[in-house]
Amino acid sequence: MSVKTQEPVITRVSDLPTSEARWVALKKVEYVDQVGTARTWEVAVRKTRSAKAGVDAVAMGNIILHPSRPPATLLVIQYRPPLDAYTIEWPAGLVDAGEAAEEAAVREFKEETGYDCSVTSVSPIQAADPGMTNANMQLVMVEVQLKEEDGEEPPLQRLEDGEHIQRVIVPMSEFYDRLVEYAKQDRTIVAAKLFHFAAGIHFAKTNRYGI
Amino acid sequence: MSVKTQEPVITRVSDLPTSEARWVALKKVEYVDQVGTARTWEVAVRKTRSAKAGVDAVAMGNIILHPSRPPATLLVIQYRPPLDAYTIEWPAGLVDAGEAAEEAAVREFKEETGYDCSVTSVSPIQAADPGMTNANMQLVMVEVQLKEEDGEEPPLQRLEDGEHIQRVIVPMSEFYDRLVEYAKQDRTIVAAKLFHFAAGIHFAKTNRYGI
Repeated sequence: MSVKTQEPVITRVSDLPTSEARWVALKKVEYVDQVGTARTWEVAVRKTRSAKAGVDAVAMGNIILHPSRPPATLLVIQYRPPLDAYTIEWPAGLVDAGEAAEEAAVREFKEETGYDCSVTSVSPIQAADPGMTNANMQLVMVEVQLKEEDGEEPPLQRLEDGEHIQRVIVPMSEFYDRLVEYAKQDRTIVAAKLFHFAAGIHFAKTNRYGI
Repeated sequence: MSVKTQEPVITRVSDLPTSEARWVALKKVEYVDQVGTARTWEVAVRKTRSAKAGVDAVAMGNIILHPSRPPATLLVIQYRPPLDAYTIEWPAGLVDAGEAAEEAAVREFKEETGYDCSVTSVSPIQAADPGMTNANMQLVMVEVQLKEEDGEEPPLQRLEDGEHIQRVIVPMSEFYDRLVEYAKQDRTIVAAKLFHFAAGIHFAKTNRYGI
């Protein structure tokens, strides 16, 4: 197991023909709009979506429960080449062919965090970034129930080759504030879906509209 | 002004070379990871980001206030070619060169909804879909203060050619439930950021963890 650690560095960025891409393709969509006008739209699509699953990815909104510690959530920090930055996200992963969202969530959560979890709810299918891509996902809420003797350090991960994922456990009472602090750090960016969920909680607790 | 309305239909989908794309490009990123291994990643990037702004887009989390009606939020429904579906989103738009997030938010909100708004907060920069793209955005919370005599119908929009955007006003008390209902409709998908914000509010109000 390699322990050498250094800051990731981008060495080259080049145009990629769709024919040579393995994961992502660029498509031109020609369509006729609501008033009968022929138009085009440029779309990035994942090549990996299973026709059976119909959904690209799951993200695991998670609550870590312990008898004597406050409810918390586990966030993952990893270098993301598309942004050349470290991102703060909930654990997430692509859904395998023939896999249900709940199954993918439990499998990916175990791989990325080391924890066994139980699913408490599964969201409808959501569009990741509707103006640019057909990528979609489901938010699966999960719960980890620890025992009194379980320590604060998460168990061993089972990462794939090339995955370097740091885990942090944040008390839910500090969730939103910690994301705002992370966003101020150098070379660090919070993922939009995670931030929006935390912002929703923050809004519910602080808004002056009586909502 | 054209009034003819029909269901949009996709007539052709074809591979798009990055050299011919105007809005989106496909790139191969070569990088050296944390343990010194050379790796590659496939990335979709927007060609339109202003170097000055450093952010692609803003979304407007909005609260519509009226003296005698409950606080509400305005959602936009539009056909999105990448998904071949109607999406439910908060109003959003690309940031122009030299424009601050607050300015883009007020301008785009007026164009898409017809309403003047005031900005109440601006989020940190967030990554739209970190595994696939460098696209980023800021959530700008805005407020619309209506007068007693203002009706329930929003004012005229100022849409660009080809934009067909339907507006619906949803009481905040029904926000989450209405999104879940929309997601069940045919050819309709809720945008992930919007859903996550509403799910955060829902979580804050209903969770059994005392959070």
